[in-house]
Amino acid sequence: QAGPTANFGEQGFVTFNYAGQFWAQYQDFTSATDNGSQTDFFLRRNRLTFKGQWSDYIGFYAQLEATSDGRDETMSTGRSIYYRDAYLTMDFSDPLRFIVGKFKNTFTRENLEACLEPLTLDRAETIAYTPFGRSRDVGVAMWGNLLDAQVQYRVMVADGREADEVVQDSPRVTGRIHWSLLDPEYQYGYRGTYLGTQRVLTIGASYDYQADVAYGDAPNLSDSKDYDAWTADIFFEYPFSWGTPTLSGAYMDYSVGDAINMNPDDELPITSELDAYYAKAGYLVPGKVGPGRLQLFYRYENSDYNVDTGFYDQTWNSAGFNYYIDGQRLKFTFEYAMVDFDQPMDGVPPLEDYDQATAGLQLIF
Amino acid sequence: QAGPTANFGEQGFVTFNYAGQFWAQYQDFTSATDNGSQTDFFLRRNRLTFKGQWSDYIGFYAQLEATSDGRDETMSTGRSIYYRDAYLTMDFSDPLRFIVGKFKNTFTRENLEACLEPLTLDRAETIAYTPFGRSRDVGVAMWGNLLDAQVQYRVMVADGREADEVVQDSPRVTGRIHWSLLDPEYQYGYRGTYLGTQRVLTIGASYDYQADVAYGDAPNLSDSKDYDAWTADIFFEYPFSWGTPTLSGAYMDYSVGDAINMNPDDELPITSELDAYYAKAGYLVPGKVGPGRLQLFYRYENSDYNVDTGFYDQTWNSAGFNYYIDGQRLKFTFEYAMVDFDQPMDGVPPLEDYDQATAGLQLIF
Amino acid sequence: QAGPTANFGEQGFVTFNYAGQFWAQYQDFTSATDNGSQTDFFLRRNRLTFKGQWSDYIGFYAQLEATSDGRDETMSTGRSIYYRDAYLTMDFSDPLRFIVGKFKNTFTRENLEACLEPLTLDRAETIAYTPFGRSRDVGVAMWGNLLDAQVQYRVMVADGREADEVVQDSPRVTGRIHWSLLDPEYQYGYRGTYLGTQRVLTIGASYDYQADVAYGDAPNLSDSKDYDAWTADIFFEYPFSWGTPTLSGAYMDYSVGDAINMNPDDELPITSELDAYYAKAGYLVPGKVGPGRLQLFYRYENSDYNVDTGFYDQTWNSAGFNYYIDGQRLKFTFEYAMVDFDQPMDGVPPLEDYDQATAGLQLIF
Repeated sequence: QAGPTANFGEQGFVTFNYAGQFWAQYQDFTSATDNGSQTDFFLRRNRLTFKGQWSDYIGFYAQLEATSDGRDETMSTGRSIYYRDAYLTMDFSDPLRFIVGKFKNTFTRENLEACLEPLTLDRAETIAYTPFGRSRDVGVAMWGNLLDAQVQYRVMVADGREADEVVQDSPRVTGRIHWSLLDPEYQYGYRGTYLGTQRVLTIGASYDYQADVAYGDAPNLSDSKDYDAWTADIFFEYPFSWGTPTLSGAYMDYSVGDAINMNPDDELPITSELDAYYAKAGYLVPGKVGPGRLQLFYRYENSDYNVDTGFYDQTWNSAGFNYYIDGQRLKFTFEYAMVDFDQPMDGVPPLEDYDQATAGLQLIF
Repeated sequence: QAGPTANFGEQGFVTFNYAGQFWAQYQDFTSATDNGSQTDFFLRRNRLTFKGQWSDYIGFYAQLEATSDGRDETMSTGRSIYYRDAYLTMDFSDPLRFIVGKFKNTFTRENLEACLEPLTLDRAETIAYTPFGRSRDVGVAMWGNLLDAQVQYRVMVADGREADEVVQDSPRVTGRIHWSLLDPEYQYGYRGTYLGTQRVLTIGASYDYQADVAYGDAPNLSDSKDYDAWTADIFFEYPFSWGTPTLSGAYMDYSVGDAINMNPDDELPITSELDAYYAKAGYLVPGKVGPGRLQLFYRYENSDYNVDTGFYDQTWNSAGFNYYIDGQRLKFTFEYAMVDFDQPMDGVPPLEDYDQATAGLQLIF
Repeated sequence: QAGPTANFGEQGFVTFNYAGQFWAQYQDFTSATDNGSQTDFFLRRNRLTFKGQWSDYIGFYAQLEATSDGRDETMSTGRSIYYRDAYLTMDFSDPLRFIVGKFKNTFTRENLEACLEPLTLDRAETIAYTPFGRSRDVGVAMWGNLLDAQVQYRVMVADGREADEVVQDSPRVTGRIHWSLLDPEYQYGYRGTYLGTQRVLTIGASYDYQADVAYGDAPNLSDSKDYDAWTADIFFEYPFSWGTPTLSGAYMDYSVGDAINMNPDDELPITSELDAYYAKAGYLVPGKVGPGRLQLFYRYENSDYNVDTGFYDQTWNSAGFNYYIDGQRLKFTFEYAMVDFDQPMDGVPPLEDYDQATAGLQLIF
């Protein structure tokens, strides 16, 4: 997906890209007390990207974003643009690479799957993201590939939770390792699908830790709690003559010492004690269907929030298709999702059962 | 106004532009109780634009803006940048074109006249904009030219008003048609002046509708009101040997079932029951005057807000000139405006009579 | 530091740059009641720059920034991007140049030293900035070089303080003059070090004035106060065989008629009655040290806030080094600073004595 590229100096270049995901979404809530349905056009992702290399060793990546511009709001001007990513890369050798700046935290596989190359409509809305520093964090990562890129390791030191509510400000440390049994996945980012161009079977696992992130008893500034989380994941995609199946699943467990059920600060996120898993499957039809390629997908998620009230626990079932008019550069996606709560909160739309239909058009320029 | 352009692929290109409108504005309010005058430097428009085409069929447009940066504020950092526009274009044929994303709503002619190519200093400050989704909205437009581009049609489905205050969230639908009797105006955007390069006589009309946008009795969640609006407009410009006159006028009527005079939600804009019209005239002097070209202009606006208190109703009279040093790329504009209220609100500067002198320098790079 | 450049038209070009300053900072406060230490990764500067010239005469500069993204905050999305600079330049001749838009106010030398080319880790955190329109303001500057660029003058008219709290809105006027006894410093921006490429001895002085910026007795709207400030500065750098020393110092005096000790509006900044000075020294080791060049530096600041309570008055001592791997394009900086208050405010971390260690990596692309 290279866009316009300008060369400079001896080996240097900068590439510019624009990427937009234009979504139309219909939601229908089941509560009797709420006026149930709504439609919404918004720009799920809306990005200007500048990236470059001086040489094989030094590069940068800066990406502007205004997430979900126009969602649930009467348009007047628009959401503020911020740096979704801004980092420097130093690649000394394949086993020894560094990233410095603001970039994807290296915990769940799905967070690390490219935003514009998911298998399903999008990543999980919640469970793929860590409670502190959700998708991106600021810090330094050391990573690399070993054994002909069969094995990849990553270690990241970052800010994690930072606020007055934190007991003692200390860095967050994340480690990840994966093992690719077939073709290597040797980049920092994964993909949700390789569209049948790779034979992949990768298993991975990560651990995430930050000490003293919250008080169990915040009003009395006592009972310090650490954050820790782990995840394990598997990804399989293989091009057969009858089509390319994709199968992927992950389990993740986030914890802050059960502080959410004690007397924590108000800012502690509801996701701080979450256990969850997802399974997703795709099938890319061989050859073209009309002018493009067709991929069917299914997604299942189960989330257990471990709050004493029992609210929030939910399952997500969705099915849909990607129609690749020009690969990921121009793609139409449709997904129908059913979200069911173990214990719905009646009259509070985001916490009652709902159906959601989304049509998305993606352009990468 | 093409700027630096990078080609890529077989037919693709991306063009980059910067455009700034640097204004110095003096306002003098007539109230005896208020300290009357103020001067202000600010950046009325301040834009980085990226646009491109893969081919004749598929294109994009992304524009960053921080409107009126520095206006009425002690400078510390600056206003947040947002996407003024971000959309995908699909042009299947001249009669069948689509725009998907965030772009200009297709209601008033003046809103559709290019921001950097107005006849007067700027558009109307208020009446050119719809009460919901003022200048831009998020959605989809189908449009095209018929009968050798003598006739142009547009249909747009967008978000319109979206908020908790809305009775029932449903899409906004806008339709517009124009008829060009001389040279066609075949683009999605109009211009406020063609600087004598076209012979234009175009008449147009639009209708805008969204159901159930507000309650007439908001505290009791009753008396649902629809929004509807219509406008009609005319534009004439013709290069004669003695110079190029430009004449343009429009009438617009916005309504939300008189909810503004009932008991609506606090967010309902004061412009929701507005009737208004403008007339503007220009005269481009033939040949050069010094190193550039001189265009004189006059503008009249009448606004009737239909609020029971009688406040807000106003007339605007302004006169000034554009001095085109290098066409629209480098232009100096001066305008003197007198704003008179039928019933001024004494001591509330924006609602008392005032005079306003503005000098503007425009650069498009 | 030219980056990728696109030419267009006959003489025109646009250059794009990305610049990042990635900092890791440790702070240790001495108070017994506060949990003393914290570490933080953040992006001190994070900039996309677009600049161009049509010709020798007309140019523009637009720079996007999100200052200190990730500082003291749990990362979720990021800080809003704004225009750090956005201006038009008109260079009629070396003695007659204009800048129009949002750009650096022309008061202290250190504010005018390039953000990416300081001698020490950074400028002064506070004293280099004026109380109103801190680093940049919106307005117009006329400036130029006289007598073979030995003398440079600048006059700027800008917004200064603008708000409801202002007694009478009127423009801010700033004047500056410098005299270069050796090599001329002929640009609008200075540098904190020329890395031994110039022989420089420059002395400068500035005056800054805005009438009626605050009430001494704000509740009663009485006792109007003017703002005025002056500064004098000296800069010396000379490449000797034994290395390049750099010596620089400045004194600045900001005043709003002692309003801060009366009954002013709440928005009046604590810096409004500040006297301060800094002295900084550097030593660039001749030749290479390893693959790059090494520069040692020391910085001293003394600030007297003139508030009756005696709080805020402080001294800053810091020492560190720059290691230029590829000039300013890729640089590593370390600084250790000790900040001591004449009268610390116990338990209020920014106002108690602290030590601060900062490691910074700078990339200009």
